[in-house]
Amino acid sequence: MLNIGILGCGRIGQVHARSIAALPNARIGAVADAVPAAAQALADRTGAEARDAQDIIASSDINAVVIATPTDTHYDLVQASARAGKAIFCEKPIDMSADRIRDCIRVVDVGGVTFLAGFNRRFDTNFANIEARIRAGEIGEVEIVTILSRDPSPPPLAYIRSSGGIFRDMMIHDFDMARFLLGEEFSQVFAVGAALVDAEIGAAGDVDTAAVTLTTASGRICQISNSRRATYGYDQRIEVHGSKGMLRAENMLENTVELGNGAGFRKSPAKYFFLERYEAAYLREMAHFVESVVSGAPARPGVEDGLRAQIIADAAAQSLSTGKAVKL
Amino acid sequence: MLNIGILGCGRIGQVHARSIAALPNARIGAVADAVPAAAQALADRTGAEARDAQDIIASSDINAVVIATPTDTHYDLVQASARAGKAIFCEKPIDMSADRIRDCIRVVDVGGVTFLAGFNRRFDTNFANIEARIRAGEIGEVEIVTILSRDPSPPPLAYIRSSGGIFRDMMIHDFDMARFLLGEEFSQVFAVGAALVDAEIGAAGDVDTAAVTLTTASGRICQISNSRRATYGYDQRIEVHGSKGMLRAENMLENTVELGNGAGFRKSPAKYFFLERYEAAYLREMAHFVESVVSGAPARPGVEDGLRAQIIADAAAQSLSTGKAVKL
Amino acid sequence: MLNIGILGCGRIGQVHARSIAALPNARIGAVADAVPAAAQALADRTGAEARDAQDIIASSDINAVVIATPTDTHYDLVQASARAGKAIFCEKPIDMSADRIRDCIRVVDVGGVTFLAGFNRRFDTNFANIEARIRAGEIGEVEIVTILSRDPSPPPLAYIRSSGGIFRDMMIHDFDMARFLLGEEFSQVFAVGAALVDAEIGAAGDVDTAAVTLTTASGRICQISNSRRATYGYDQRIEVHGSKGMLRAENMLENTVELGNGAGFRKSPAKYFFLERYEAAYLREMAHFVESVVSGAPARPGVEDGLRAQIIADAAAQSLSTGKAVKL
Amino acid sequence: MLNIGILGCGRIGQVHARSIAALPNARIGAVADAVPAAAQALADRTGAEARDAQDIIASSDINAVVIATPTDTHYDLVQASARAGKAIFCEKPIDMSADRIRDCIRVVDVGGVTFLAGFNRRFDTNFANIEARIRAGEIGEVEIVTILSRDPSPPPLAYIRSSGGIFRDMMIHDFDMARFLLGEEFSQVFAVGAALVDAEIGAAGDVDTAAVTLTTASGRICQISNSRRATYGYDQRIEVHGSKGMLRAENMLENTVELGNGAGFRKSPAKYFFLERYEAAYLREMAHFVESVVSGAPARPGVEDGLRAQIIADAAAQSLSTGKAVKL
Repeated sequence: MLNIGILGCGRIGQVHARSIAALPNARIGAVADAVPAAAQALADRTGAEARDAQDIIASSDINAVVIATPTDTHYDLVQASARAGKAIFCEKPIDMSADRIRDCIRVVDVGGVTFLAGFNRRFDTNFANIEARIRAGEIGEVEIVTILSRDPSPPPLAYIRSSGGIFRDMMIHDFDMARFLLGEEFSQVFAVGAALVDAEIGAAGDVDTAAVTLTTASGRICQISNSRRATYGYDQRIEVHGSKGMLRAENMLENTVELGNGAGFRKSPAKYFFLERYEAAYLREMAHFVESVVSGAPARPGVEDGLRAQIIADAAAQSLSTGKAVKL
Repeated sequence: MLNIGILGCGRIGQVHARSIAALPNARIGAVADAVPAAAQALADRTGAEARDAQDIIASSDINAVVIATPTDTHYDLVQASARAGKAIFCEKPIDMSADRIRDCIRVVDVGGVTFLAGFNRRFDTNFANIEARIRAGEIGEVEIVTILSRDPSPPPLAYIRSSGGIFRDMMIHDFDMARFLLGEEFSQVFAVGAALVDAEIGAAGDVDTAAVTLTTASGRICQISNSRRATYGYDQRIEVHGSKGMLRAENMLENTVELGNGAGFRKSPAKYFFLERYEAAYLREMAHFVESVVSGAPARPGVEDGLRAQIIADAAAQSLSTGKAVKL
Repeated sequence: MLNIGILGCGRIGQVHARSIAALPNARIGAVADAVPAAAQALADRTGAEARDAQDIIASSDINAVVIATPTDTHYDLVQASARAGKAIFCEKPIDMSADRIRDCIRVVDVGGVTFLAGFNRRFDTNFANIEARIRAGEIGEVEIVTILSRDPSPPPLAYIRSSGGIFRDMMIHDFDMARFLLGEEFSQVFAVGAALVDAEIGAAGDVDTAAVTLTTASGRICQISNSRRATYGYDQRIEVHGSKGMLRAENMLENTVELGNGAGFRKSPAKYFFLERYEAAYLREMAHFVESVVSGAPARPGVEDGLRAQIIADAAAQSLSTGKAVKL
Repeated sequence: MLNIGILGCGRIGQVHARSIAALPNARIGAVADAVPAAAQALADRTGAEARDAQDIIASSDINAVVIATPTDTHYDLVQASARAGKAIFCEKPIDMSADRIRDCIRVVDVGGVTFLAGFNRRFDTNFANIEARIRAGEIGEVEIVTILSRDPSPPPLAYIRSSGGIFRDMMIHDFDMARFLLGEEFSQVFAVGAALVDAEIGAAGDVDTAAVTLTTASGRICQISNSRRATYGYDQRIEVHGSKGMLRAENMLENTVELGNGAGFRKSPAKYFFLERYEAAYLREMAHFVESVVSGAPARPGVEDGLRAQIIADAAAQSLSTGKAVKL
């Protein structure tokens, strides 16, 4: 029975708490939050103890930590946890600085601890199915990956301002997904973007509509586009075109009902919120983490994957500002 | 070059004229209609000669006739044409009386002429594809056939009154389709129905909503339902469930466009009108007729198929009026 | 906090235990099973106490019972529970005898207790969505209901023998669904069926392929077909045709992935097992039960609904054996 | 009755001949081809006269010409036809040189003749439906256009060598479509590409897999990808994301049949060949040309549209070779 400490009891920390509760081989040993009331509320709901984060990391009865705190605290918590020999599940992004992520790689290596980077979409049953079938050779050599990813509505401006921009906050998921599916590192990125949804986002120095073209040394291509708005729900589509076939994942709709009348045939919108859309993926993600710790097998995606995605995001931001393709 | 006389220049006669014009190995030799102006109009459009029907049947330069006149004239025209040695394409129903269709079978047999019964749906590319795959064993033994068939809107009451009722006018297509797909004759029929769309249809002694259950000696089942109304276009769906799989044909929509917005995902209505829906089937049907005449191979569906469908329709009407299952 | 006793710790009792555990306003107070080890196993997993069933019914700390025992024990447990003033969640069928269900109606009435009949499909998000939209008038007057329902594979022969036959065991779900959707009682049923999947099922006196036509006094029609086999997963489709539109629910597939290659475009099979297919429905069902008990509002479907479905199933069985339509 | 001369009797000339034959207000007056036998064959099939191209252009009984000859002859034929006052339907590309297309614009302007550039896809019922709905405001402001366009298999190498490259030969259709849908000119293009399908294509100096990102001054984005191979048929998908909704056109499949079995649910491949896929579009295109000539209203797309698409294709080729975004 893995005894896990949850660091950060906000929305995503609570999601991970629910996942742990549903697993037969893990339990929530303790929870921590900078806001004591938040920690106490989750403690009450889960029956775990509310403690200080450093305290949890130092506890000998805790085997693993889930780092679900604000991004700027990840670095210190990863360092401390790795030194204390705890297995680490760290939410994405690991850090806004590629160099600091490199520091994390070193300390994780030295500590020899399990590390899972929280790219939850790899655990979506649809996308994982595509990846497994690519690896099994079902579509031959991958040639073009197309990712359409749109949020149902933009986050608050305050969030935008501290998010690091659309490439580091939102498209980073797609960068990781593209790497996951392609199985070859990208060698170049070109980005365009504009604030078409909300001029205030532009005023805040960010864009809300963006498109990126990635290429590999062998000539494979990935096109990604993002929008901070989708009227029809949470839009998450992926298509992989290969020499022997094509695999694509459509959106998950709210239900399977179709209405037919004079206006045509109408299905329900896509599931709206990321927690609803990726509910099962979060559970599979935590199950993988726990299993990795228990079995000693490496967790995937690891800290290195976190670094790679961050490097692409940085380069995309640079491409957007310079108007030039950037080598990776 | 097959030289064809068209008897009856109404809507369906004109459809067949267009099909003949599109075929490389057939031409319209002459056209006839009880209304001379109708014959002349089609003659003008096609470059064919307008003649009297009996004249066409007697002409030595005419190889084949398309009988597209009102149902109550089919009998005499079939008799005369078969005796004159003409190949016959006869619109459905051949006749309202099974006994008179038996007469037609005899005269066609004696004459040794090609006979095609105008069940156009067998030539629909979707339904023909299903039939071919059943015959190829793709779904094993057929167990359940489900047919949903709905007209976009009811015909005029005057038409209803002389139509012979929903089973002989509308569901007869489905009876033929069920026989085509199943490959085994039905042994029993049970029917229910009501006038739910228009009380006037009920007052005219007919129903506008009907459902039938057919069974074969070996226990296979076919369920059919009809409505004289479908808000979303011309509804023509077929599903065949077998021991090794299931084949189904969905409706043909007006286009492939989908709109996504807050109301969900909306596609276009189904093609609305039977001429539009079955345009390609009518052409394939005529091509099969011409090829059969040219090659001497039997045309399918033949006059016997016309009889079988009529017998089922009669029995369904009897079942509806008696409330009892009727043996075939 | 509703304190619930689970009577019967088999597969379905365990499903309900999981649902209760996931609800914030209910807990499992005690569990019972004729096989003590089964009760103990569930007790261990849930932290509840294993007791004797009669003991649970008599316990003053237990507010409600879930009856998930074999069908022939339902009657006595319902009687005892109702007399003890416990709210009752009883799995379908309530009993194989309509008269005995009438007894249950009386004792539940006298006791004034909440009663939920376990027709879980009413709580499926897709079917519930259709029902709500019918009630809201979205498709006008309902005219034709079509239900296609196929199990992925037949149950063991031993189960078939004690099941009461396909109408009372399997199609009873569809009878309840048809009543749920139609909002008018049926006045007649006609049934056909055969053992096409497995001759042994026929030898056991049952059929594995069956079709039923139901009609109401006002002429509305429902066609249902069942098969004990579906090669492509658990097949559960419903379509309701009305005067202003049509609503239909398609199957829930394993995932949203589509493969395109020379053979065409292929999606995954339907979810295979009923526990997987109706996982969310079971949770919503239990939530409704708990809410009904807490609020005092009547639970739906109730014991009367259980009776109605059983009466239709009995009549369908009679129709199959007599070959005649049966009035309800 | 418009009397049309067809210049070039190859595959596409024959397509246009069929379209003209199907129109009530146009006829084929004469046909010409550099290979006399090709002209004679089409003359025989259509009943038109085979003449020399210059002869046709000079004939006073000919009102319009269809230029379906090799690209390098377009320029002279356009010049001559415009000077002779003939309405012109010219296949794409008008010419490989933007400057020479500018010459054509001048001569067409001076002659005041109708000119239709043969971008047939604008006349596809699906894409035309999307465009009309965008113009009607159904999805608000257009933000992202995504075009996936893949040929079923590469053309012969000899064709590749003289094609002008993938951007001028294949993606030019998508450039025109993007302009058609967006309603705003593009200001920048960035292209990547590689020979992934066939190394010989690379050796011939071209790529077979390419992706382009276009942007407008107002920040709108268009992503296009092309492949010379698609295992599942002719792949032609378009999606337009706007502020109020999204419109997308799916592929046209061979039929509507779906097979369900243990492998899942399988539909037919997409229509394979461009003549089959765009059969109806070619007819609508010719109908628009004839109607424009008859009514005197300008034909769309015109010679200016041909120039714009060519300019984008040239810039895309330049971007691919330099690795830099190119301003338009």
